[in-house]
Amino acid sequence: MKFRISRSALTEAVSQVSKAVSQKTTIPILTGIRATVDEEGLWLTGSNSDLTIQVAVPAQRDDKDQVKVEIIGSVVLPGRIFADIVRKLPGEEVDWVVDERWKTTLRSEQAQFELKGLDPEEYPRLPQLHEDQMFSLPSELLKSMIRQTGFAVSASEARGVLTGVLWQLKEGKLNFVATDSHRLSRRQAEVEAPADFTVDNVVVPGKSLSELAKILQESNGWVDVVLSENQLLVRTENLLFFSRLLDGTYPDTNRVIPQGGKTEIVLSTKELLQSVDRAALISRDGRDNVIKWTVKEEGTVQVHSAAQDVGSVLEEVTAKVSGEEMDISFNAQYMLDALRAVDSDEIQIVLTGTMTPFVIQPADRDDSLHLIVPIRTR
Amino acid sequence: MKFRISRSALTEAVSQVSKAVSQKTTIPILTGIRATVDEEGLWLTGSNSDLTIQVAVPAQRDDKDQVKVEIIGSVVLPGRIFADIVRKLPGEEVDWVVDERWKTTLRSEQAQFELKGLDPEEYPRLPQLHEDQMFSLPSELLKSMIRQTGFAVSASEARGVLTGVLWQLKEGKLNFVATDSHRLSRRQAEVEAPADFTVDNVVVPGKSLSELAKILQESNGWVDVVLSENQLLVRTENLLFFSRLLDGTYPDTNRVIPQGGKTEIVLSTKELLQSVDRAALISRDGRDNVIKWTVKEEGTVQVHSAAQDVGSVLEEVTAKVSGEEMDISFNAQYMLDALRAVDSDEIQIVLTGTMTPFVIQPADRDDSLHLIVPIRTR
Repeated sequence: MKFRISRSALTEAVSQVSKAVSQKTTIPILTGIRATVDEEGLWLTGSNSDLTIQVAVPAQRDDKDQVKVEIIGSVVLPGRIFADIVRKLPGEEVDWVVDERWKTTLRSEQAQFELKGLDPEEYPRLPQLHEDQMFSLPSELLKSMIRQTGFAVSASEARGVLTGVLWQLKEGKLNFVATDSHRLSRRQAEVEAPADFTVDNVVVPGKSLSELAKILQESNGWVDVVLSENQLLVRTENLLFFSRLLDGTYPDTNRVIPQGGKTEIVLSTKELLQSVDRAALISRDGRDNVIKWTVKEEGTVQVHSAAQDVGSVLEEVTAKVSGEEMDISFNAQYMLDALRAVDSDEIQIVLTGTMTPFVIQPADRDDSLHLIVPIRTR
Repeated sequence: MKFRISRSALTEAVSQVSKAVSQKTTIPILTGIRATVDEEGLWLTGSNSDLTIQVAVPAQRDDKDQVKVEIIGSVVLPGRIFADIVRKLPGEEVDWVVDERWKTTLRSEQAQFELKGLDPEEYPRLPQLHEDQMFSLPSELLKSMIRQTGFAVSASEARGVLTGVLWQLKEGKLNFVATDSHRLSRRQAEVEAPADFTVDNVVVPGKSLSELAKILQESNGWVDVVLSENQLLVRTENLLFFSRLLDGTYPDTNRVIPQGGKTEIVLSTKELLQSVDRAALISRDGRDNVIKWTVKEEGTVQVHSAAQDVGSVLEEVTAKVSGEEMDISFNAQYMLDALRAVDSDEIQIVLTGTMTPFVIQPADRDDSLHLIVPIRTR
């Protein structure tokens, strides 16, 4: 294995696969990054038990050589130190030579590193997926769907399937649902999919999705999504992102989303967010992080919180109110998470009663909603 | 106590005193911030057992009212939550009212907070210092002296006086020394001081100095330094910074600094720094974080490090070499700390032998030096 590669292209690829590389693992070779070079360019692979990221550095880019291959081959290098070295090498290009015992020499200008490599045959194989189970959507849309639902997954590993986001697809409509049983977030969008491709119970770990959102950060094109029984693959031009799926059946959440309500309020997302954010300063010191709203017919929402030994906060937000006056108490953090996920300037909140779940939606769209279960207070 | 204050001025002052506020403490009132308002403006005080920071918000600034006082007074408010509230209040101004039981109301536009305050009489008194023991220097100079020595203090609380920086003053020359007994850093500078003001054994805790450097970050004018038997006071226009001093006699370090040497090398600070930084990638995985230099008569320094199970690095840096060829091994982190502290483009290193301390200095000045004790290797 012998080639020369652009250091900046290598640095970028290494930083992407590093997101999947295990720091601690029961499978030692997974602390490494696998590198494979052939005439097409270099492929790097990083993996932990949950997800695998593969990034290509194509031999040419914009008519310029990025990788000049002399001898094709593969090696596994220690992940963390390899990434550090690549980032700190002095020159524009790196000469990379691997001998028959996997000893790897990286040379760039006056600096020369030798690393003990490992046999790439011992590196786990990538999952094989059938391409017929596939749909496509813009990378921006996928990132926003993740951002608007991912925070609502359960943080407790004991909750199994609830630590993931449910993906459903029917008639070209993709639906994401996440809930920890105290709150729920849902987002729908049209995607490009075969009309008869239906997905009912695919649950992707929340952690995988937050890594995916990070790795797609710079990506603006379309992504392909390929599904198999126990794996998800998200693919862009030079990237393969594999995640295992969670076992188990996701609960039917349609029943818990109320239709209609007793009180409807429409107000500025930003004003409400800032107001709840301030109230949360007090509630965080109190039990359960509770804040209380009093919705007044004349068109205000009073935001209130009190914590013994600390103090209290009271403020009013102007709102369009229709229906009954109502008091409602809830977890301030859940409300902050939901309000931060909403992209619209105006927000609509439908209350169904002091002790029943209520729904937060953009005022101008119905493709996303957040549900919060209130808290009983004295 | 009743006044109105500019929120931006208050926010800045609170963020500065917060640096001294205890998070955990055996003296509960020290988790608070003391506020005192009179016709001159507002003074805020934060303190922990080691240091005290007092910041003024003057009533006027640039002919504009910052503080409009109706009733003078004092109160102690819970530090963390008070700082968060001030930062997040909505308006330009804050109305601040304290009743006779220290209940404090902070109101800004539609938001109103009530906080349980404490009796300011229970807050510890500030140290009293005599103004005759005083000298002055530019804030920038003080920050650079701290930056060039502070890293070399001992991190081990068991080392007592070595966890601080020694301050000495004689004939208008200020001298900072820090050592953890494996390396030493020294910096000298002229300051404005009475000719007969001599300081011999003032030792300031390293932690206090790093806080001081942070709090002086934005300050460009001159600072006054006032010394007493057990306290240091650094004063700028609107800031008082008190630190306790360390007990004990600082060791005489003049003896350990070698005069002359066997090998002298002059080289680019940046090139050497980057080279040692790369070598440290390997040495960090090895025992003792050791790297080795081989100084060659023909004008190169070979930088080498090897760690079992990882690999090795070798590179050459061009240098002007005079004297004997020499191998020397040392802690890579000590070298990185010293090289990062040097402000000059070129650096001079004087080696006295494979096993004796060596000195790193700017090539063009003799007001600062760093000494490193080598490590014995096979």
